[in-house]
Amino acid sequence: MPFSFRVEARSHGARAGILSTDHGAIETPVFMPVGTQGSVKGLTSRDVWDTGARLILGNTYHLYLRPGVSLIERAGGLHRFIGWDGALLTDSGGYQVFSLASLMRVSDLGVTFRSHIDGSLHEFTPEAVMETQARIGADIAMSFDYFGGIPCERVEAERSVALTTAWARRGLKAMGARSDRYGYEQVVFGIVQGAEYPDLRARSAREFTELDFPGYAIGGLSVGESKDATWDLTERTTELLPVDRPRYLMGMGTPLDLIDAVARGVDMLDCVLPTRNARNGTVFTRDGRLVLRNARHADDLMPLDPECGCVACKNHTRAYLRHLFLSNEMLAPMLATSHNLFFYADTMRAARAAVVRGDFDAWYRAFVDRFTRGDRESAARAEVET
Amino acid sequence: MPFSFRVEARSHGARAGILSTDHGAIETPVFMPVGTQGSVKGLTSRDVWDTGARLILGNTYHLYLRPGVSLIERAGGLHRFIGWDGALLTDSGGYQVFSLASLMRVSDLGVTFRSHIDGSLHEFTPEAVMETQARIGADIAMSFDYFGGIPCERVEAERSVALTTAWARRGLKAMGARSDRYGYEQVVFGIVQGAEYPDLRARSAREFTELDFPGYAIGGLSVGESKDATWDLTERTTELLPVDRPRYLMGMGTPLDLIDAVARGVDMLDCVLPTRNARNGTVFTRDGRLVLRNARHADDLMPLDPECGCVACKNHTRAYLRHLFLSNEMLAPMLATSHNLFFYADTMRAARAAVVRGDFDAWYRAFVDRFTRGDRESAARAEVET
Repeated sequence: MPFSFRVEARSHGARAGILSTDHGAIETPVFMPVGTQGSVKGLTSRDVWDTGARLILGNTYHLYLRPGVSLIERAGGLHRFIGWDGALLTDSGGYQVFSLASLMRVSDLGVTFRSHIDGSLHEFTPEAVMETQARIGADIAMSFDYFGGIPCERVEAERSVALTTAWARRGLKAMGARSDRYGYEQVVFGIVQGAEYPDLRARSAREFTELDFPGYAIGGLSVGESKDATWDLTERTTELLPVDRPRYLMGMGTPLDLIDAVARGVDMLDCVLPTRNARNGTVFTRDGRLVLRNARHADDLMPLDPECGCVACKNHTRAYLRHLFLSNEMLAPMLATSHNLFFYADTMRAARAAVVRGDFDAWYRAFVDRFTRGDRESAARAEVET
Repeated sequence: MPFSFRVEARSHGARAGILSTDHGAIETPVFMPVGTQGSVKGLTSRDVWDTGARLILGNTYHLYLRPGVSLIERAGGLHRFIGWDGALLTDSGGYQVFSLASLMRVSDLGVTFRSHIDGSLHEFTPEAVMETQARIGADIAMSFDYFGGIPCERVEAERSVALTTAWARRGLKAMGARSDRYGYEQVVFGIVQGAEYPDLRARSAREFTELDFPGYAIGGLSVGESKDATWDLTERTTELLPVDRPRYLMGMGTPLDLIDAVARGVDMLDCVLPTRNARNGTVFTRDGRLVLRNARHADDLMPLDPECGCVACKNHTRAYLRHLFLSNEMLAPMLATSHNLFFYADTMRAARAAVVRGDFDAWYRAFVDRFTRGDRESAARAEVET
């Protein structure tokens, strides 16, 4: 089955779609758990599957450095290397060379950087990055982009847009937007940049639309700018992107961020937030956040979220989770991660159902009301306790 | 169904039995994974179940200190607190107050010690320890014992035997050997002590046999004495214990230790070795140990053990496991732990099948030959590499 995307319903700016890949059809909006180094931290592949996830993300930068592309290729591609039957997306590495590596030089040709692991010197060119992702074998690869940060001098933001478009063209020329090295289809999405400048975002969106990618990401947001700016820029960008292509907002966010993005026509999201917060003992519920180490949970025999169907909520109490965190048991982050990802997937399922029903707006308001009220009450109790 | 034990077959000193509890029937010989603080480190309850384990161990000393017995009791007992449907055994805490806590005073009455967590002062009396274990809700509890270490002055070893018998009597007087606080039967096993003195071991075994416990443990071994001494003392003790009761050798060991114990009529074993080694990257296979961080596994696309049916062997390669260990991914110890426990359970199943077939001796020799040959070859390769 070739890659395809179909919007099935719309409601108040939100979309319900189906993203078809050779590794399964994925209902959108979808949140993609992050498996940076070939593992969603703390979960087996079966655990990830049980959260409801069918599309997960791997980081090209990390996998390229360790274990290296040759091994992944010899193992039969990333799906087989990590034992994942669902679909996979790899990012371009553009964000990581900027944020994690020591960036040595950015030229028209590409980026030279030093590994954050051992300081070794490497070069990413747009052609090499597309080749690397094809060899890694993701169902969806990302065009190599240049991310200049926010805030960003206008001249630097202009350079970011120009380089990102030029690199996209070179990537397309070298590899095309579709390939099938492993006998299944691999497609490439473009990434819109432009920092905090609406006109540059618009220019980037126009240039990428002309390049006719199977899908588009909005990159370089949620890096310190205000939420108003995030949503303004997201909205302005999605409006310019072709309605028949999936839109992927990179690196967001909290449950409220997720549904705020969905409300603006975003179809795909990813973030380390639910997994990283889980490891720190913070879980998300329909009634806001719970900080599991808090003394208030010492005797709390409730599940994390009584309406949740995850492995932690079906089998365990808050008191047990708290005990595991205080005892530094690995099972603590494992269960909290399962919960957070299940909750994220559940939230996307509920949002989609609301779109299909045609009452996304009412669902959105009810979700936000309940989540923020619970969060406020928790904060108030925490203040009384301290 | 009341607690019972039945020996179904014997072969060359080894026994195949059935240990029946209200939380299921357990085939013996059995290895019990250790869930010290209410979690087998790195595994969910389902993961533990999938290794084949049906009887796991909790540590009274740890659970008493954290999260405390009241919470476990209010949660409905340890099974419900940790979400485990199989059977549970708790140790007596006698070994931990000696090895982990700061031991303050040992008197006829009991033991005073300081917590290894916060230095707080606590007292374990034989009556309190039996009450604590009953409240924790294990299917099998252990009589409170006094462990003097090995080597041990004879006078101290004599004291250990005398105290352990006296405390067993007091525990029995206070609680009996069977109770049902949670609506299922809880039984108590006695622990034979006697350090490295065969005559004291014999005295302890005789005194405990007179007390008519539903099962017997051999305590205080594998603490630094020679393997010859371990097996000599084990053999001398099992010979004196009633043939119709299960025999539990505490704190052993490697796969070879397991089957050496089984060869001497041991029915039950526990140890942190397979789980601790797994976390350090060492796994056991039919062909000996593998140290997963070794460079030789960098490109090794074999499963850990091609004959193993565990989640790691069915889905993953040595190269992937090595990558996870080098990347400090939690999934590394998780998968290695699943493997080691599955391998231990498998080894016990194979040993049992050999006993039932009546050719335990041939099976034992084949297992030892293959395991030690593989281990020697690994060691030889490691030497060449370094």
